[in-house]
Amino acid sequence: MDNEILQALHARKSVRVFTGEPVSMGERAAILDAAFAAPTAGNQQLYTILDITDPALRRTLAELCDHQPFIEKAALCLVFLADCRRWPRAYRAAGVPAPRKPGPGDALLAMADACIAAQNAVTAAESLGIGSCYIGDVLEHAEAMREALHLPPAVFPACMLVFGRPVAQQKARRKPARFAADALVCENTYRDRTDAELRADFAARAAQNGERDFDFDAWVQAFCARKYESDFSREMSRSAAAYLADFA
Amino acid sequence: MDNEILQALHARKSVRVFTGEPVSMGERAAILDAAFAAPTAGNQQLYTILDITDPALRRTLAELCDHQPFIEKAALCLVFLADCRRWPRAYRAAGVPAPRKPGPGDALLAMADACIAAQNAVTAAESLGIGSCYIGDVLEHAEAMREALHLPPAVFPACMLVFGRPVAQQKARRKPARFAADALVCENTYRDRTDAELRADFAARAAQNGERDFDFDAWVQAFCARKYESDFSREMSRSAAAYLADFA
Repeated sequence: MDNEILQALHARKSVRVFTGEPVSMGERAAILDAAFAAPTAGNQQLYTILDITDPALRRTLAELCDHQPFIEKAALCLVFLADCRRWPRAYRAAGVPAPRKPGPGDALLAMADACIAAQNAVTAAESLGIGSCYIGDVLEHAEAMREALHLPPAVFPACMLVFGRPVAQQKARRKPARFAADALVCENTYRDRTDAELRADFAARAAQNGERDFDFDAWVQAFCARKYESDFSREMSRSAAAYLADFA
Repeated sequence: MDNEILQALHARKSVRVFTGEPVSMGERAAILDAAFAAPTAGNQQLYTILDITDPALRRTLAELCDHQPFIEKAALCLVFLADCRRWPRAYRAAGVPAPRKPGPGDALLAMADACIAAQNAVTAAESLGIGSCYIGDVLEHAEAMREALHLPPAVFPACMLVFGRPVAQQKARRKPARFAADALVCENTYRDRTDAELRADFAARAAQNGERDFDFDAWVQAFCARKYESDFSREMSRSAAAYLADFA
């Protein structure tokens, strides 16, 4: 199976260094329109997109998102908010006296809607030669983020995307290999990978990446320390709990 | 701005009636490979995909997902699980004595990873002439779903997708209009739509859909009763809370 669309999905990789060339208003509209065209639960579009144009706010976001200064330099910076507020406000405007408070199911459904829309924005941008990078760190520092973005209750960041044209070095960068299908897909019911299978999964991925003499224990321990046990990862869970408290 | 990829993103609409023609193994592989190629936090692929091939399990899922029998008739049925279990198991296998328990930040990051991958699967399928439909109801009935899919703690359904070739009537069906950009995008900070703006947003969407004499109050009240205040919507929040309790 091969076609232009499949090729584009496989070619897309994160871009973190941009040429500085702007994204035109037409390109911006095409990226946003593709996001809107994405599948959405009950055609509700349970998201709001913030287009961050203010340089000072960009700087604040770059700091709040684990100090990533390339966020400031992106041609376009979109925060995809899971929004469980618009529809209840419409219900009230239409005369529903007391719609129920949004719950955790609404939060997760809105999170899905926002991320599905974001991925269409990524694919649209790629088709225009515009690179992108997800910033998952936007989930951190709920209190400061709420203040910076004026987020009301029941509205929280699902993901952030920055866009721009890739410099040559970024274009040449190899896309990191993924795990093989066996590592990721089960038939019918969930089954844990055994320790031996996990070792083989990671080794196969490393081999795909051209890594020689891959040391599972050393690599995975280092990754765990650098990512999973990092301050930003703990902060992300503290912050996510603060957002989810709105839905309790 | 126009190209084949943007056209495909706009053309894609949900398909709920299938011809019965199977999805070939090559097509299945192309759909899954596109999902794997999606952006993923730290290249972790925080998801597991269940390929539901067992007819009895399909029937169970169709029932648990708000009684939608077309789920049984799909050529391919994939459950995208947010998986916060694989990496901690790898950490242990690599000799990390006691990795921290996954928290709400891990849950939301995995939810994002799973939905982003799912949307690539949708776009890949569309490029092969294969229709798809998200089933958000897969979030409901946590206890029965866990039992049916053998879900361990810290693994929960992010979304479900069914695939198949659309019958002619589904191909001809008009894609429902979305809200206009003004209704969905804010510059820099969040701003509520006023009641008057909400009325105008909904009226503009209805007009795009060719609905004459749109009655905002009546339509929104009915939607609220049918969707937001429905049993399945309340069940989704109860069930989502049960899944999220793993991360508390």
